[in-house]
Amino acid sequence: MNNIKKIAIIGVGFMGGSLALALREKFSNISIWGYSRSKKTYDKLKKLKILDKVTRDCQILIKDADIVVLALPIKAIIEYFKIISPFLKPGAIIFDLGSSKKEIETQAHRLLPKTANFVGCHPLCGSEKSGAEFSNKDLYKGALCLIACFSNQRAARTVRGLWKSLGSKVLFIKSDWHDKVLSCVSHLPHIISFSLTQFIPQNYLKFSSGSFKDLTRISNSPAAVWTDIFLSNKKNILKDLNKFIRTLKTYENLLKKGNKNKITGLIDKVNAKQRRII
Amino acid sequence: MNNIKKIAIIGVGFMGGSLALALREKFSNISIWGYSRSKKTYDKLKKLKILDKVTRDCQILIKDADIVVLALPIKAIIEYFKIISPFLKPGAIIFDLGSSKKEIETQAHRLLPKTANFVGCHPLCGSEKSGAEFSNKDLYKGALCLIACFSNQRAARTVRGLWKSLGSKVLFIKSDWHDKVLSCVSHLPHIISFSLTQFIPQNYLKFSSGSFKDLTRISNSPAAVWTDIFLSNKKNILKDLNKFIRTLKTYENLLKKGNKNKITGLIDKVNAKQRRII
Repeated sequence: MNNIKKIAIIGVGFMGGSLALALREKFSNISIWGYSRSKKTYDKLKKLKILDKVTRDCQILIKDADIVVLALPIKAIIEYFKIISPFLKPGAIIFDLGSSKKEIETQAHRLLPKTANFVGCHPLCGSEKSGAEFSNKDLYKGALCLIACFSNQRAARTVRGLWKSLGSKVLFIKSDWHDKVLSCVSHLPHIISFSLTQFIPQNYLKFSSGSFKDLTRISNSPAAVWTDIFLSNKKNILKDLNKFIRTLKTYENLLKKGNKNKITGLIDKVNAKQRRII
Repeated sequence: MNNIKKIAIIGVGFMGGSLALALREKFSNISIWGYSRSKKTYDKLKKLKILDKVTRDCQILIKDADIVVLALPIKAIIEYFKIISPFLKPGAIIFDLGSSKKEIETQAHRLLPKTANFVGCHPLCGSEKSGAEFSNKDLYKGALCLIACFSNQRAARTVRGLWKSLGSKVLFIKSDWHDKVLSCVSHLPHIISFSLTQFIPQNYLKFSSGSFKDLTRISNSPAAVWTDIFLSNKKNILKDLNKFIRTLKTYENLLKKGNKNKITGLIDKVNAKQRRII
């Protein structure tokens, strides 16, 4: 990180804001800039004081930035590949925090200039929270950060170093494989949680206990972010959704038959598997 | 609670053990007894010192008890209606903590002597934890306790008073209605959680993030307890499971069509509903 003087963050919400705080704590010699297109968010960011500098001028933000971070929904990340390209200084590193990676890899290759160094990242510490006001300087400490693609080794090493210095564990993973795994461990669970909240009758809400709250907590995750993720990783998610419905139907069949021993046997196995999650 | 000298708890696991601790803290003049059929659990309970007295003799436990608590899986509750009946003193109050209520109400009416007073309870603070070693004296503080049936008003008032003195909020609800609601807010979520853990490939577990952990936490809930609940409330659960699968399929269809606006609109509504859960 020795040659880095300025980092520009586009999309200073919960993830981007937390990154700004973490970087400022760790690297007092680097200037952390944030960008907001809207006047309202610009004013909020000014008040929150989580950045060294806030601007609404994309050219001023980008032209001398050594690293540009895109902490945006997926479609917006791709949009900003086009917007920032004319202003990027040669050799600048661009990385994103998007939750699906294959489409981003393809579009980065297509849209960014050859002199730019792209690294596709996904820190596994997203939350149903949104907005810079929830920023947490320790968000990335101990989190697993996946690097799913990079245009060259040197840029990948720099970005890995950045995450490690913030206390993240870094793992390299191919973007195809990333999208398969994340469909299972994150994208499908979000569809399940949205569906469960949608399904429950309004007048039952007052009886919701701990289990229901746990399963529906992430159903407050922002619609714009998650619509993009679902559409971007559609093929894997549709496959997993189908497989998950088949799993639900094994319980349906055992229940219909009243097969006590088989249900107990199934749950016993699930119990053992769950204990390996934590 | 003035006339109560002895409370006997059958099934001193997480729920029963927590109740013992709470009662001992609140009512130092009442003797709290626990029962274990197995030598192993008997020895464990002796060591844990959460009861005033532990016995393996059901007759000694029951014969002078003013209140008998059945903190057991549903089939075992019904089994113990038969076992304790010959020893119950006239006027004794029996209550259970079972998570489905209609079947228990029917069997209590059929199996308990006319001189006994049954009250069907369900405190909504169950957990994936099991075993008396996890007992927590504050488990029932602030929890909602549903009373779903009672053989007479006086017994219902006594039991309501007991829960209130432990800090619980008490609500009376008909057992049919209880089972409909609980199918939605608890039983179906458990089937979903078991299915999600079952569905995930073993080698993906290391990538599990916060959302996946939240959704699968309760899939470590004890198999024996949950098999009984599922079978006891089978009709409602099958109906809800079917409805939930249809909800999942609306997401499947929108994804297939790539209908961005409709997906965002749907999730926006879900977000608003989720915020009413907490």
